[in-house]
Amino acid sequence: MSLSDRILAGDRLALARLLTQIENEQPEGFDALSGLFPRTGQAHLLGITGAPGTGKSTLVNRLALELRARTTATVAIVAVDPSSPFTGGAILGDRIRMRDLTGDPGIFIRSMASRGALGGLARTTAAVVDALDAAGFGWILIVTVGAGQAEVEIARTAHTTLVIEAPGLGDDVQAIKAGILEAADILVVNKADLPGADNAVRALQSSLELASGVRRVWDHHGRPEPAETGQAETGRAAHEVWAPPVLRTVAVLGEGIGEVVDAILGHRSYLEASGGRVRRDRERLSVEVHALLRDRLLAEFLMSRSRAELEAALEQVCSRRASPRQAVENLLAARA
Amino acid sequence: MSLSDRILAGDRLALARLLTQIENEQPEGFDALSGLFPRTGQAHLLGITGAPGTGKSTLVNRLALELRARTTATVAIVAVDPSSPFTGGAILGDRIRMRDLTGDPGIFIRSMASRGALGGLARTTAAVVDALDAAGFGWILIVTVGAGQAEVEIARTAHTTLVIEAPGLGDDVQAIKAGILEAADILVVNKADLPGADNAVRALQSSLELASGVRRVWDHHGRPEPAETGQAETGRAAHEVWAPPVLRTVAVLGEGIGEVVDAILGHRSYLEASGGRVRRDRERLSVEVHALLRDRLLAEFLMSRSRAELEAALEQVCSRRASPRQAVENLLAARA
Repeated sequence: MSLSDRILAGDRLALARLLTQIENEQPEGFDALSGLFPRTGQAHLLGITGAPGTGKSTLVNRLALELRARTTATVAIVAVDPSSPFTGGAILGDRIRMRDLTGDPGIFIRSMASRGALGGLARTTAAVVDALDAAGFGWILIVTVGAGQAEVEIARTAHTTLVIEAPGLGDDVQAIKAGILEAADILVVNKADLPGADNAVRALQSSLELASGVRRVWDHHGRPEPAETGQAETGRAAHEVWAPPVLRTVAVLGEGIGEVVDAILGHRSYLEASGGRVRRDRERLSVEVHALLRDRLLAEFLMSRSRAELEAALEQVCSRRASPRQAVENLLAARA
Repeated sequence: MSLSDRILAGDRLALARLLTQIENEQPEGFDALSGLFPRTGQAHLLGITGAPGTGKSTLVNRLALELRARTTATVAIVAVDPSSPFTGGAILGDRIRMRDLTGDPGIFIRSMASRGALGGLARTTAAVVDALDAAGFGWILIVTVGAGQAEVEIARTAHTTLVIEAPGLGDDVQAIKAGILEAADILVVNKADLPGADNAVRALQSSLELASGVRRVWDHHGRPEPAETGQAETGRAAHEVWAPPVLRTVAVLGEGIGEVVDAILGHRSYLEASGGRVRRDRERLSVEVHALLRDRLLAEFLMSRSRAELEAALEQVCSRRASPRQAVENLLAARA
């Protein structure tokens, strides 16, 4: 029985082996993945990002259990740590409370850390997600540590993106929030029992109104009233427009988790009804194809030149005789 | 008088125009930059990164003033906000207290936000830094919002990298800290008057000892004792090994800023004595050349294929008839 057949039959050890092959960029892993690719496209991808200190790990833990309980579909969690490019250790995954999750064979957790260049992790994550999708997981949670650009771009490859905030994390949090607002399908203020939670919720609501140009009425759960969304701004039917809710949770107490899962299921239905799912899939795959193409073309080019020639070009730049752009032009011209 | 000549003569408006051209990727900007490139290599590049809530803006403000006062060299601040890929607004720069800095014509501030793909900002930042270097700034502070992978990689292109922490930012901060520890030349615990500062300092010191495998004696400023560093671990002379200090500041009160500048000047001397400056420059320029090469090769390839052909390849992937890797192989094979 091949590795792929074992994975399709539900063998978790075979799946773990494939993921390791992918992370190590072994050709047999990519071959197996190409064979599995026709089986992908079934899972709902959920990106989860948030600044440090927001209680993301606990919230993810609760969401996984609630998604299992409510939908019976299996859940895979990919914990991505792009802030560890040096140590190679993935930390978040170990910190998600395994004891709560490991009892359920329908939940699978994989930690990933970056090795090598920026961008490499995004590519590997995409491949890992494809493998989990083919393996039949109904929900794939892509969780990133931190909320920098790399993290947001990884989370944003998902169908539904959750952004987690918490009260009282200081001024800089406002800056991050402004940046990732447009990526968020669902906003969650966790630790909502802390002082400042109301302010955080209102600030997010105001920012959303400002960004969309629509004043909204928010119900006591932080959901925008349906009548106020959609039609007012564009004349399109309400199901074609998604107004991100701002929800409150206290993940350590399990409070508000049900509402978050409601919103996730709502967004999934919205995407299917509006054609957004097909569009997001297409964007994600297009980015993946371009990134792979870029890597392949560079590798091919570097193989075609001698080491001495490449060293000489770099030496010209280091001695300031050619700018990086000039050196690249020279290398490309020499090829012709 | 050309734009380049005006920049070399100290014309700040000309410099601002060039930076805008570079940010907008206008060819004339890159041409001017290639002309200026031989004048680069003089500035000391200082990367500053830290999680939200660490008080980075205030600290940067104080450091800029102190560097000006102590070294008389001019200071440029590049505030990079990779977490704003969507709004295009750069926030940090506006939040550095301009009133303290704008009175001094020897300090120049430029904010940058990401437009487009991950990696693009790193490339643009490198070009902006080159322009500022050629323009004669003695210190270039590259300040990033957030501490994700993108931020760390940008900060790390500097000669000296400062990582800022603060007490009481929650558990996730530990995770980020572990990841960026190896990138730090100088660690600063800001807001050192808050409870938990001693713990934060000790945790960083322990992590550093763990990473280097050397137990150290720390003086009351958080500097590792010279006798304990260097020789013990490698047998090399002490000036060849840099043991990152863990310093305390209360930036709003101006406390500890002098010690941070001492450490920066110390690290600069160390880099010059050890050959580390040449090595770091070479690494940085090598990354820049490879990134430019990758972009150029992709652009060239996409130009050489018809739109229909590229669309057909993507369609194959979206319909799951080919994996992303297979589609890329097919595109490359069709070229031959």
